[in-house]
Amino acid sequence: MRVTAYAAPAAGEPLAPTTVERREVGPGDVLIRIEYAGICHSDIHTVNGDWGPQPFPVVPGHEIVGTVTEVGSDVTRHRVGDRVGVGCMVNSCGRCATCRSGDEQFCLDGTVFTYASPDRDGTTTQGGYSTHVVVDARFALSVPEGLDPAAATPLLCAGITTYVPLRRWGAGPGTRVAVVGLGGLGHVAVKIAHALGAEVTVLSQSLKKQEDALRLGADSYFATSDPDTFARLAGRFDLIVNTVSADIDVDAHVRLLAVDGTLVSVGVAPSPISVDGGLLSQRRSVAGSMIGGIAQTQEMLDFCAEHGITADVEVIPADRVNEAYERVLASDVRYRFVIDATTIG
Amino acid sequence: MRVTAYAAPAAGEPLAPTTVERREVGPGDVLIRIEYAGICHSDIHTVNGDWGPQPFPVVPGHEIVGTVTEVGSDVTRHRVGDRVGVGCMVNSCGRCATCRSGDEQFCLDGTVFTYASPDRDGTTTQGGYSTHVVVDARFALSVPEGLDPAAATPLLCAGITTYVPLRRWGAGPGTRVAVVGLGGLGHVAVKIAHALGAEVTVLSQSLKKQEDALRLGADSYFATSDPDTFARLAGRFDLIVNTVSADIDVDAHVRLLAVDGTLVSVGVAPSPISVDGGLLSQRRSVAGSMIGGIAQTQEMLDFCAEHGITADVEVIPADRVNEAYERVLASDVRYRFVIDATTIG
Repeated sequence: MRVTAYAAPAAGEPLAPTTVERREVGPGDVLIRIEYAGICHSDIHTVNGDWGPQPFPVVPGHEIVGTVTEVGSDVTRHRVGDRVGVGCMVNSCGRCATCRSGDEQFCLDGTVFTYASPDRDGTTTQGGYSTHVVVDARFALSVPEGLDPAAATPLLCAGITTYVPLRRWGAGPGTRVAVVGLGGLGHVAVKIAHALGAEVTVLSQSLKKQEDALRLGADSYFATSDPDTFARLAGRFDLIVNTVSADIDVDAHVRLLAVDGTLVSVGVAPSPISVDGGLLSQRRSVAGSMIGGIAQTQEMLDFCAEHGITADVEVIPADRVNEAYERVLASDVRYRFVIDATTIG
Repeated sequence: MRVTAYAAPAAGEPLAPTTVERREVGPGDVLIRIEYAGICHSDIHTVNGDWGPQPFPVVPGHEIVGTVTEVGSDVTRHRVGDRVGVGCMVNSCGRCATCRSGDEQFCLDGTVFTYASPDRDGTTTQGGYSTHVVVDARFALSVPEGLDPAAATPLLCAGITTYVPLRRWGAGPGTRVAVVGLGGLGHVAVKIAHALGAEVTVLSQSLKKQEDALRLGADSYFATSDPDTFARLAGRFDLIVNTVSADIDVDAHVRLLAVDGTLVSVGVAPSPISVDGGLLSQRRSVAGSMIGGIAQTQEMLDFCAEHGITADVEVIPADRVNEAYERVLASDVRYRFVIDATTIG
């Protein structure tokens, strides 16, 4: 079946409407009529070729919410009419050690990512800036009823990306969590960390977003451009979630950790991470994290529904996607663009 | 009171007998007749000036076992005749957040280390290569009866240094632990990790110590000079305890970590730690650790007594200390020198 989509025809070129082929609905598949597709910064990195050559044309989009319109004969998990979400991956082997432990994103046989990724049938996956998508039903999440579908869309990437390290490193009552960067990821991290009961501090370059941060649930806010910040907050945090993909001064941030504290980056900066070993000797850790498994993604959606958490979004028609890309690059969005997919085809 | 000791008169000069002043036994102090003093690689770094200028003359020694011969009026923790140990520190403020949480080694007011450290009375501490030492009774550990006193001596530094990260990062049944380097620290790490129930692998430069490692409790042994080692063991370990103070190839070792795994260094290498951020994205961590608090040191000694763990030691008379230093630098000791302090004065 051919469906309408917005694709980048080549590296750095504007996205334009086109059609792509979706596979027949197999016994384990669901066909989803897409309602919303979030714009993630990694979409832009990918189509700009920042992360190496891509199998153009590329249809980006790994934050997808829609409605099931057809299910395969073996599918029991979802029914026609269900509202579902698809995140950054659409398949994995299901048999390797990491799949079995619930981390399908690290499948030893190769995770199938939602776009620009080789699929098991030899085709290349195409993402959510489209009218429809066919995915294995195991990789379609249930979107709880209480969540606004447009605002819930970014949870499929930004939500799980920040939920996982907050849970893995114990954010909760009595812990002090800092979130570095208040963008698409950071603003969701603040909401989730606050809902988990942690004391939340935002570390952002300037004071521009202070009011927003406090409204989102932060207890305090400091500008990293102010050198005083690093002196004042020395040894303070149990966990720092770094949502910035640019290089940061790792040593300066490690000094903000308490004994046993962890600085976890959820993006990958251009340069290797370099840290003074002496600063780690207080059982401090420097760590990374990347999305999360399917079961934990469902847990995150349920947690967000329970706590009324969604992203702050600006919904746009598909024909404004290139303009939105420009604005993301200029940090001119609070905090996530979501494409209204009914405007696509 | 003046006591005999072996001191380095200046950076890089041989140690020689001398006398040093020990303070009067205060109400909270104990006087210890030293029986054994371990030689730690950091003693050599310190007196060689590798770690910056020192307040010479310096009496090294922060692995001390002896017998209490006098107690201050307020001391209830120890009695005359008790066998006690002193490790890397002899005082801390006791009131700051890290002291209160049991990490006196990170005292915010400044830990008093066992030698070459400014003491609270303005003097400079002098270590265990000596006949006697006076310390605050809270910093004297009880050495359980079942432990051979000479062989237990290195536990005061090498034991706690390796016990802490093994406990902090969950070594136990079902976990796979690698120990990098089989020296003074590494050989104790193997014994403790084995006793904790972990599957233990030793990673050492050559195959020279393979037989020893298996005898000490390792389940397997690989040479890091063999490039095959890094391919074969990819993704294998939940915890890698790096006991090597020289620079290692951090990326190569991080690749050996499973999802959620931690590479913890207990020494501080000369260069900053540099790691490819992408390798951390599987929730891997790079961490550090430095000795442990007093309560946990006692816990470690009790654990070692319960499991029959001591260091493998070569006991020497004090007048062979300089020769022993040469042999430590040549890695020619299996695995720790201990000075028989009764030969000092």
